[in-house]
Amino acid sequence: MTKRRIYDFGPNGADGSKELKALLGGKGANLAEMARLGLPVPPGFTVTTEVCRVFLARNGGMPDGLETEIDAALARLEITAGARLGDPAKPLLLSVRSGAQASMPGMMDTVLDLGLNDRTVAGLARLHGDRFAQDCHRRFVALYGSIVLGVGAERDPFQTLLDDLKRRRSVATDAELAAADLAALVQTSKDLIRMRTGKEVPEDPREQLRCAIQAVFRSWTKPRAVAYRRIEHIPDDWGTAATVQAMVFGNRGEDSSTGVLFSRDPTDGKPRLTGEFLPGAQGEDVVAGLRTPLPLSELNRRSPAIYRALSEVAQRLEHEFRDLMDVEFTVERGTLYVLQCRSAKRTGLASLRAAVDMVAERLLTREEAVLRVPADALAHLLRPIFDAPARAAALDQGRLLARGLPAGPGAASGSVALTPREAEARAQRGERVILVRSETSPEDIRGMYAAEGLLTARGGLTSHAALVARQMGKVAVVGCAALSIDADALTASFATAQGLRVLREGDWLSLDGLTGEVIAGDLPTVPSEVLQVLVEGTRRLDEAPAAQLFVRLLSWADSFRRLSVRANADQPEQAAAALALGAEGIGLCRTEHMFFGAGKIEPMREMILAHSEAERRAALDKLLPLQRSDFVRIFRAMRGKPVVVRTLDPPLHEFLPKDDAAIAALAATLGCTSLEVRRRTQELAETNPMLGLRGCRLGILYPEVTRMQARAIFEAACVVEDEGLRVRPEVMIPLVGSRAELEQQLDLVRATAQAVCAERGHKLTWLLGTMIETPRAALVAGDLAHSADFFSFGTNDLTQLTMGLSRDDAGPIVRAYLERGIWKTDPFASIDTAGVGELVRLGAAHGRAARPALELGVCGEHGGDPRSIEFFEEAGLDYVSCSPLRVPIARLAAAQAALRAGTAKRITPPRRLGVSPDETYVPALEARTAEVPHARS
Amino acid sequence: MTKRRIYDFGPNGADGSKELKALLGGKGANLAEMARLGLPVPPGFTVTTEVCRVFLARNGGMPDGLETEIDAALARLEITAGARLGDPAKPLLLSVRSGAQASMPGMMDTVLDLGLNDRTVAGLARLHGDRFAQDCHRRFVALYGSIVLGVGAERDPFQTLLDDLKRRRSVATDAELAAADLAALVQTSKDLIRMRTGKEVPEDPREQLRCAIQAVFRSWTKPRAVAYRRIEHIPDDWGTAATVQAMVFGNRGEDSSTGVLFSRDPTDGKPRLTGEFLPGAQGEDVVAGLRTPLPLSELNRRSPAIYRALSEVAQRLEHEFRDLMDVEFTVERGTLYVLQCRSAKRTGLASLRAAVDMVAERLLTREEAVLRVPADALAHLLRPIFDAPARAAALDQGRLLARGLPAGPGAASGSVALTPREAEARAQRGERVILVRSETSPEDIRGMYAAEGLLTARGGLTSHAALVARQMGKVAVVGCAALSIDADALTASFATAQGLRVLREGDWLSLDGLTGEVIAGDLPTVPSEVLQVLVEGTRRLDEAPAAQLFVRLLSWADSFRRLSVRANADQPEQAAAALALGAEGIGLCRTEHMFFGAGKIEPMREMILAHSEAERRAALDKLLPLQRSDFVRIFRAMRGKPVVVRTLDPPLHEFLPKDDAAIAALAATLGCTSLEVRRRTQELAETNPMLGLRGCRLGILYPEVTRMQARAIFEAACVVEDEGLRVRPEVMIPLVGSRAELEQQLDLVRATAQAVCAERGHKLTWLLGTMIETPRAALVAGDLAHSADFFSFGTNDLTQLTMGLSRDDAGPIVRAYLERGIWKTDPFASIDTAGVGELVRLGAAHGRAARPALELGVCGEHGGDPRSIEFFEEAGLDYVSCSPLRVPIARLAAAQAALRAGTAKRITPPRRLGVSPDETYVPALEARTAEVPHARS
Repeated sequence: MTKRRIYDFGPNGADGSKELKALLGGKGANLAEMARLGLPVPPGFTVTTEVCRVFLARNGGMPDGLETEIDAALARLEITAGARLGDPAKPLLLSVRSGAQASMPGMMDTVLDLGLNDRTVAGLARLHGDRFAQDCHRRFVALYGSIVLGVGAERDPFQTLLDDLKRRRSVATDAELAAADLAALVQTSKDLIRMRTGKEVPEDPREQLRCAIQAVFRSWTKPRAVAYRRIEHIPDDWGTAATVQAMVFGNRGEDSSTGVLFSRDPTDGKPRLTGEFLPGAQGEDVVAGLRTPLPLSELNRRSPAIYRALSEVAQRLEHEFRDLMDVEFTVERGTLYVLQCRSAKRTGLASLRAAVDMVAERLLTREEAVLRVPADALAHLLRPIFDAPARAAALDQGRLLARGLPAGPGAASGSVALTPREAEARAQRGERVILVRSETSPEDIRGMYAAEGLLTARGGLTSHAALVARQMGKVAVVGCAALSIDADALTASFATAQGLRVLREGDWLSLDGLTGEVIAGDLPTVPSEVLQVLVEGTRRLDEAPAAQLFVRLLSWADSFRRLSVRANADQPEQAAAALALGAEGIGLCRTEHMFFGAGKIEPMREMILAHSEAERRAALDKLLPLQRSDFVRIFRAMRGKPVVVRTLDPPLHEFLPKDDAAIAALAATLGCTSLEVRRRTQELAETNPMLGLRGCRLGILYPEVTRMQARAIFEAACVVEDEGLRVRPEVMIPLVGSRAELEQQLDLVRATAQAVCAERGHKLTWLLGTMIETPRAALVAGDLAHSADFFSFGTNDLTQLTMGLSRDDAGPIVRAYLERGIWKTDPFASIDTAGVGELVRLGAAHGRAARPALELGVCGEHGGDPRSIEFFEEAGLDYVSCSPLRVPIARLAAAQAALRAGTAKRITPPRRLGVSPDETYVPALEARTAEVPHARS
Repeated sequence: MTKRRIYDFGPNGADGSKELKALLGGKGANLAEMARLGLPVPPGFTVTTEVCRVFLARNGGMPDGLETEIDAALARLEITAGARLGDPAKPLLLSVRSGAQASMPGMMDTVLDLGLNDRTVAGLARLHGDRFAQDCHRRFVALYGSIVLGVGAERDPFQTLLDDLKRRRSVATDAELAAADLAALVQTSKDLIRMRTGKEVPEDPREQLRCAIQAVFRSWTKPRAVAYRRIEHIPDDWGTAATVQAMVFGNRGEDSSTGVLFSRDPTDGKPRLTGEFLPGAQGEDVVAGLRTPLPLSELNRRSPAIYRALSEVAQRLEHEFRDLMDVEFTVERGTLYVLQCRSAKRTGLASLRAAVDMVAERLLTREEAVLRVPADALAHLLRPIFDAPARAAALDQGRLLARGLPAGPGAASGSVALTPREAEARAQRGERVILVRSETSPEDIRGMYAAEGLLTARGGLTSHAALVARQMGKVAVVGCAALSIDADALTASFATAQGLRVLREGDWLSLDGLTGEVIAGDLPTVPSEVLQVLVEGTRRLDEAPAAQLFVRLLSWADSFRRLSVRANADQPEQAAAALALGAEGIGLCRTEHMFFGAGKIEPMREMILAHSEAERRAALDKLLPLQRSDFVRIFRAMRGKPVVVRTLDPPLHEFLPKDDAAIAALAATLGCTSLEVRRRTQELAETNPMLGLRGCRLGILYPEVTRMQARAIFEAACVVEDEGLRVRPEVMIPLVGSRAELEQQLDLVRATAQAVCAERGHKLTWLLGTMIETPRAALVAGDLAHSADFFSFGTNDLTQLTMGLSRDDAGPIVRAYLERGIWKTDPFASIDTAGVGELVRLGAAHGRAARPALELGVCGEHGGDPRSIEFFEEAGLDYVSCSPLRVPIARLAAAQAALRAGTAKRITPPRRLGVSPDETYVPALEARTAEVPHARS
């Protein structure tokens, strides 16, 4: 035997351990570990993932000699278990279960009660009673039929047989069925299998075992497993292990039961035993949810000794695995068996609390705690959420209208507005509004800003609506296919299973930006505690335990991370929020959003429609003081931290009105005809606006625009510095492709800055730089670096151009590509490291080669994505910039990336944000033992 | 003196030579060379371009010590000339002329008759008469005033003074003005200068000289010179030399004259002395065109000795420079002086004939001849042209409506059609049609195909209209800003200087695709001789001398080139033409154009609007035989040469009708409402269609489309091979970004190919490959190469994506960038080597590293551009593919690139195209001496 292919475990210890996860799968490795710890694990053995890989590669052929090895392992197991497979006198029953390196709950298959045939059923009946034997038999036949022989793709037909039988017998539960009923059910099930597949359930238990192991291996390639791996980024070539284990029975009467236990509460992370159990049942009954389980407190009442034993198991496992654990157990006639344990799925809050508490408990180091909390989980702590009971009631009432893509986390309710104008008007009347649109454009900004939430029929997670929503922290559900809007009738219709539901402006609607649910009516929300403390200042940190945990973990993260984190913000309130959430500057201030404010869009439009440079200058003269005052407020808010201001970027036609009334109003202002406004708008229209007259091209064709913006920036800097604050403006030119373009624009900016300084007798310091967002810019970055103090990778546009895919049009393509497995991830959500990432690497390398002190940042949406941040750490960038609400996530992700890459800083005393979190938060350790467990729904 | 800054030349030889062009400029170097040859060159000296560079870098400061060196050179010149600057007794007059390394005719400045002041004018009058002296003086004052002192930016005000004077005196020519008139004119001119500039023309001749040299240097930076350099790709940092030379006078009476001579006819290249002269005039009079010059035959009649001397000069220069030369000469009182010589600007035909003849004359090797003919010049020999006198008459009649961008070479007249439908209808009635559109889309293909020429108001040289026009060989003028189309009134209006000219459908219009002229009415054209011989077969090669030259030069080119040349063609006629013009295969067969044929667009639309896969399959079943028969005809035409077929590429909405009638018709066919067709079209509309659902994305979402196309290709291949011909299909997948996409599509193609072969019991060979047209594809080319037999760089899309610039929207940006010098060339015309080219290099390197035998081609528009071909040669690609009419150009350019890169093949006997050109063409050497020169207009 060259390489071990089977690993035993049982009361005498185990061949494997939790370190062998890749080989034994999570289930097999943890069973081995528990056996090593002396926990009561039924004996068994695990066939490795390596065997599965060979099996799949051979298209369903087992490796040579494996059969013999399985026979030998079975023989050892029979000795340990004191029973033999197929022995009518004392039949050994087996479970055959899957288990991959990563947890894929419910995705793959399990066969239970294996080893039963007509002869062993009789033997089992003699030992434990007829009813029990028949119950096991019907379970086995059903599982074997569906999993090994592939009966019933859509619904479980065996469940239907069982339900029919219960109806005929007029009983509510399985337990009420007699042995004869169950025996008959076995027969009907066998008939069904024969009818559907032409095959028989083999009588030979070894044949059963062989086929069950192969079925478990095959289940790795089932569509739902493949789809799950796509979503969870699990490689297709890992394969699953198969664990063969002696059955224990929670269905042997009232002193038997089966249950699930969490070592801490997976909802809030508090250190109390949590879980539920079902007397007289097998494990699958809990999972299937057919009977309502009882809370663990009930087990404590019924069998305090078992409860104590379980509590010890939980503590032992937490100590060994140093994690919040999820444990499956079975009690057979008063004897406790542990069947499985794994790291528990938990909410963001639970993840955070468990990690922080475990540091206090000395189970984890700070580094480990920082690595343990998924960065995205922090988002849970930042968004208002719907009151859970109210939501459930609404769903019961049939108020669910549709599901879309969850694009802006949080919960929002408001009255429907179908135009930005209406949204603004309602908001000004003090109403809460949900803006419902086919899709949004920059013109809609004010309406979006006014609304509580956004719902769009089209566009994906990186559509304009989604992008703006995230930056603004708005709740958003996008790409809601069931929604269609009739602009004339002013209705929003939802195609539901119950038919078309038509909403009008003013009707109430609720959006859940976490689940994508669109619910009719008003649902109450709960604001996030963390934001109340850190941003709104309406709550004290010492009274806010979640915020304490949040602050503490991030203080540890900050002590490790190398990457700086800045925010994308173009409003003073956003800037202030970003600062409160730990931003170290503004990495992207989009000046175009400023033009949509009241009184600004009009001169902007005059500027665009000007017939001459003189007219254009006149309009710009009106814009200058408005833009300057915006910068003044942002610079003030940022209190000396760097602010990267990007000059005008979007195509001009985005600023022009589209509806008749607005066109007429504009024509009146300009003293021309509506026709003329329309004609000019038409002239500005482009086939591919993304690839047209925008970015620095605007500034090159209309240098006076760049000059006005530069003047506004530097005059504002002077104003704020006169107030005694420092200002560090970094002016950034967008969509640059060549050094000549960059130089042309920077010359204008430089000259204007010098002029302003001269006029005001002021000394300012500033940086001048460029976006790297066209592939060409990355390719000629060495050249650009000669003219730039900094680069900021605009990975949104860089992704669009590198892939030749517009975010606005990507929806159906992204969906299809993810479904078909052509992409593992949405490249707009996580950076495409092989393509776009290669350009980032090239750009960084060329840039640094030409100018070693070059500052390198990222300001695309990827700046707030943990997987992308890991890449940016490896690429050696200086900072990432993201929307304010993602700043904490980026801070944590940056720390994790640094720890993984080995570039983490030494630990420094955590003294950020004016609090010393270590003194504030007291872990609720005392609650650990005295806790009264309570049921989970 | 560390470095020589001044080079003398004169009757005693010269310091410089023609090898020093970079330092002395073309003019200075060639004057030195002529002096070395002993030709009668007036003495002088040249101040180097190096001095100019220092002068410009110092912002108008002369290098230290230069003044002294100029004084010394002047002293030497005075001795040689036997006259002294400023000497009233025997005044030396000088010309100060510019001359850069590359010829920039008329772009920079010249000062003549320098050295005159009140005292020297008197001396000159004593020597040569008062009238002559005053004539020289008024010339000098005018030139000095405008060039050195900068009088009169818009029109030459001195010319106005002269014209006024002639009007007052009622005389027609300068010669009729008396000395006193001219003296008065000098005074008026000086007054004008004083009035406009506040400055005086210096009396001190040395001051004049100093300022004139500086003015010549400054003229390097004049806007028109800068603009010219942009167009001609001349670097800004070359600078100009200044040549100071003793004046000779063609205006000293009837035995004096001045003229221009070509060593061969620059129009047709025939070896006969050609030129014109003007008795009693200075050189500028010839250039200014104020008097009509006489043909050289008249000089032969008047002064046979001078003519003979000139003939010898021409022969001597041709022998020395081994080129068709342009010579300026002056005869002063019977003595011949040669003032300048340079390589003559010539037509394509002349270029070709001179090169081929010079090989026969042993002046050039074949390699040199191949290098000597600009590849683009061959285009002249391929397009029909307007009859020149008819065009001139039309312009005289004010029939010029506008000028646009010349996008498709050639000349076309026809009646105006404003819709593709109208164009088709008229063409079917046998009319010649000019299709006039705001812009074109693939839907217009049939109309474009039916039309003689295309005129668009929008779009640049690489717009759809231009691209299709070039591929189809249609005449096209695009981006005609003066044109606006009223779709309702069905009129095309041209804003002309004379007001709005309105044309209706049916009015006649002529387009010159070489000049961009749009002329009202019908102009007769002359078809290209080369095409008659090679493509149409309506003329015999032995009766077509231009075709003989063409074939001969290309046979030489073919013997040197390494790159193969294929054609982009998707119609059998195009394929046949391409083959006749030397294409070695089809590098790009766009299948989408096929769908626009009669009877094809309807099932295509059904396919697009299908509600289910079944409906889509039904529509595809109708398309299959149509597409198969297209491929059959193309494969037949290509006679065994490789044909790269690209699967469906453009966004589907391009195939849908836009006008009401067509929508109604389609709805009727489909049995649905117009509204439904409109709704579906709306759904398919995209914000950035260039970046949307197209290319392989279509084939991935609708695999049945790819399958149908593959079936059509391979069934057609079987049909044609059954006829005894070989077929080499190469199936190419567009817009690929990842190996998974490519594999998914190639799997379908491979399976279909195998199925077809199995069904028909046929063995086929084929290649499968991918376009490299997204930046990502180039970056992951190593990965793609594992799945591809070949790559074809789609440099059109690659340029759009790398730069983030849509061809459809690039017009104003390209213009602005070229004008402002941000770009040296239009990246859509010549490949951007630093950016897009870097991706080509990366893609080729990665691809070849993974698969050394990988076939690499280019199928973008750049495949027919000589500068780009030079790059592709360096990048080591295997072939370029271009529109059929550019195949000969690409063949020549490929040879030139190979010769320059040192990768040329050894000479092989030229036996291409079934003719042995060396035996056919007999150079007209005997015509050389006996020729009667005739005037050029």
